[in-house]
Amino acid sequence: MSSRGRFITFEGVEGAGKSSNLGWAAELLRAAGIEVVITREPGGTPLAEALRDLLLAPHDEPVAADTELLLIFAARAQHLQQVILPALEAGKWVLCDRFTDATYAYQGGGRGVSMTRIGALEQLVQGDLRPDCTVLFDIDVLTGLARAGKRGQLDRFEREDRAFFERIRSTYLSRAEAEPARFHRLDAGAPLDEVRQQVQALIDTLVSRYE
Amino acid sequence: MSSRGRFITFEGVEGAGKSSNLGWAAELLRAAGIEVVITREPGGTPLAEALRDLLLAPHDEPVAADTELLLIFAARAQHLQQVILPALEAGKWVLCDRFTDATYAYQGGGRGVSMTRIGALEQLVQGDLRPDCTVLFDIDVLTGLARAGKRGQLDRFEREDRAFFERIRSTYLSRAEAEPARFHRLDAGAPLDEVRQQVQALIDTLVSRYE
Repeated sequence: MSSRGRFITFEGVEGAGKSSNLGWAAELLRAAGIEVVITREPGGTPLAEALRDLLLAPHDEPVAADTELLLIFAARAQHLQQVILPALEAGKWVLCDRFTDATYAYQGGGRGVSMTRIGALEQLVQGDLRPDCTVLFDIDVLTGLARAGKRGQLDRFEREDRAFFERIRSTYLSRAEAEPARFHRLDAGAPLDEVRQQVQALIDTLVSRYE
Repeated sequence: MSSRGRFITFEGVEGAGKSSNLGWAAELLRAAGIEVVITREPGGTPLAEALRDLLLAPHDEPVAADTELLLIFAARAQHLQQVILPALEAGKWVLCDRFTDATYAYQGGGRGVSMTRIGALEQLVQGDLRPDCTVLFDIDVLTGLARAGKRGQLDRFEREDRAFFERIRSTYLSRAEAEPARFHRLDAGAPLDEVRQQVQALIDTLVSRYE
């Protein structure tokens, strides 16, 4: 394949099922003969995963909002240079579990960091690169948290209260509303079969659009 | 002391003797009855020191220039919030081994990162905060490297070639020329006794200026 690959991001609050559906989307794409790279943020390279560990671990000192924000973009810069851009240039499709929309949702909506600061770093690190398509797994916060809570030890984000996650969800929803061409909002509270059908319909559309 | 403390940074290439002279400056200030906090960058808090380790360690993957730059400012944001700003507000003098001038010199001059990108992050993270005084320990690069080389294992920066350090030195020198009121350039190649006398004269001036 000589043309540039597609960059598809999967977003949503904890427990929305985006990670397992990302695997499902990758299967469908591969069945359609498309080379796929599955990755995630923060992370995706050994150094970026080390930064992820620092971001998620509880610390004895309070982590300043700017520190968290800059660490996320440091990991993102590494991930872009090492994984995402080379894959796209090689014609592969990149499926990424969270990207900059998560920064707007978690750090902007959740922590109250100014959206302008996030936008400045987005421009500095990404230039004009934005996802071609963003799948938002939307789910009622309490339902999502109940699902995520079953996974054992809570990290530094999962320890936050319900209001934090409500702000995240509502930031995701307003971003989806503001960019309807890029965002595809799925009802992640529906039964698993239905969600998978929604993912399948979306992937079919994307494949036919770019064929 | 009810007034704000002073923020003094110590800069220079490897082996210029800034760290040991920083200790000497702290002794002089304490003898003058001033409360002093000694710290360094990158680092100064447990989380920022963990980032320092990641910055200095060799990695299996190439570290993108933006990653390095954002990690440095992430560590700086944490250091400012946890250590530097609280100390200055409490009236203490902060002596810091390297600060943002080192970012301009190493990442800008050394690595070729655009000074505009560095300036954008400086403004984002520091707002209007700049050092009150910056002591530049200037030394011939080969002499400095020979001194630094005696210290055993080389880190990711010390492994760079001579031209890298020449660019760093020349960036430091042009910054010092551009801001003569803030910078005090010392001849760090002079015998240790003379360097200490230069540091003592500078500290005497600073103490009398702010009394």
